[in-house]
Amino acid sequence: MQVRVVLVGTTHPGNIGAVARAMKNMGLTDLALVRPKLFPHEEATARASGAEDVLDQAIVVDTVQEAVADCLFVAGASARARSIDWPMLEPRPCAERLIAETRHGPVAVVFGPEKSGLTNADLDLCHVLLTIPTDPNFSSLNLAMAVQVVSYELRLARAAEAPVEDPPEPGQEDSVPLATAQELEHFYRHLERMMERSGFLDPDNPRLLMRRLRRLFVRAAPDQNEINILRGVLASFERRWETERSNQ
Amino acid sequence: MQVRVVLVGTTHPGNIGAVARAMKNMGLTDLALVRPKLFPHEEATARASGAEDVLDQAIVVDTVQEAVADCLFVAGASARARSIDWPMLEPRPCAERLIAETRHGPVAVVFGPEKSGLTNADLDLCHVLLTIPTDPNFSSLNLAMAVQVVSYELRLARAAEAPVEDPPEPGQEDSVPLATAQELEHFYRHLERMMERSGFLDPDNPRLLMRRLRRLFVRAAPDQNEINILRGVLASFERRWETERSNQ
Repeated sequence: MQVRVVLVGTTHPGNIGAVARAMKNMGLTDLALVRPKLFPHEEATARASGAEDVLDQAIVVDTVQEAVADCLFVAGASARARSIDWPMLEPRPCAERLIAETRHGPVAVVFGPEKSGLTNADLDLCHVLLTIPTDPNFSSLNLAMAVQVVSYELRLARAAEAPVEDPPEPGQEDSVPLATAQELEHFYRHLERMMERSGFLDPDNPRLLMRRLRRLFVRAAPDQNEINILRGVLASFERRWETERSNQ
Repeated sequence: MQVRVVLVGTTHPGNIGAVARAMKNMGLTDLALVRPKLFPHEEATARASGAEDVLDQAIVVDTVQEAVADCLFVAGASARARSIDWPMLEPRPCAERLIAETRHGPVAVVFGPEKSGLTNADLDLCHVLLTIPTDPNFSSLNLAMAVQVVSYELRLARAAEAPVEDPPEPGQEDSVPLATAQELEHFYRHLERMMERSGFLDPDNPRLLMRRLRRLFVRAAPDQNEINILRGVLASFERRWETERSNQ
């Protein structure tokens, strides 16, 4: 199973080409572009120099949500510590984690626009933040360089895993795949709907509260059984509202 | 003591600039250029984007011999195995070795021209060959990308060796304490009570379901703000039951 690279709002088409080359050098081919400013573009093709096939196969979508909808595990590249609440991994452990999760399904690494990085809303879709160690006085890594470092670590992690049949971690023997980004999204929407109905969430100012809850749940990385339980709990609470209403 | 990066016969000035940026991102500044085709050059300056100081300080010489004259240890980047006689290291062990040798004096990593790589005569000056693992079907790494990967490993190796003296991470001072076991327990009981009332949880056989939910939430390690939000959500759902009941 492949690791998907997702580029969000890339400004310079040359960077997209350089990313394709960096990926292919390390054996990656699954590229998703979210709202690229210019694509396809001759400069992307030029910089790909031999990795045009990666560009040709790249999917172009409007939202990060779409790009990672089928993914069980998502890492978001971030130049700096955004929040103490978020698990933060350097490329090596992050690559190991990503490769481990590929056993269960698709996974992705998401990179934001060159200047600004990922928004908090995009990071809400990520299980972990990925941060590349740099000199604090000159920390702005070129986008394709960042992808190169991560792709390199993914290749090493893959190579390290390939021959060895890892014994399952304790408790993981009957491991269930993680919930996909889409399944999580459905849960969040269900929860949000109910919180609005109960009056806990003010629909005029929902953002911060939902973000906190999203962060909390994505940190737990629920598997598919667990997300089903959570949905079931919500549905049972909702039914009870109806029952109370009709019983009287 | 710094690790010197030596570029031999670089054809594209843009690559020199990208190398300077890649180096500086990882805290390296010692650059030597052996017979660059075009240098200084506006394209080098443009691609350096912030690392012009590395270009300004770069020395330009005629031979690899001159570039590494004062070095105790030299690694030569090579795309492929040139000779079975040569010690061949991947970036990680090579970086560890280079950093270890900096205790004794200057060391260098030498990168050849974009198309052809280092000549055998240049490799004769190298203690080890450095080879970056790539997909064998698409192994030609861009020069600056190769420098980026090696510089990244040098930074990790340096960090592993340096006595740790981390300043507190930004944002960690005002971190919210995690929820206590007792606060978690109150939340679980509240949730359990509501699940029984909604019929989702069978009081005669509650154990497994509650254990799964406990595991899920403890994995997320909620802080005190978050546990308060969760309690608030539950309370709002519960109030809504009462409202539905009394409204009718």
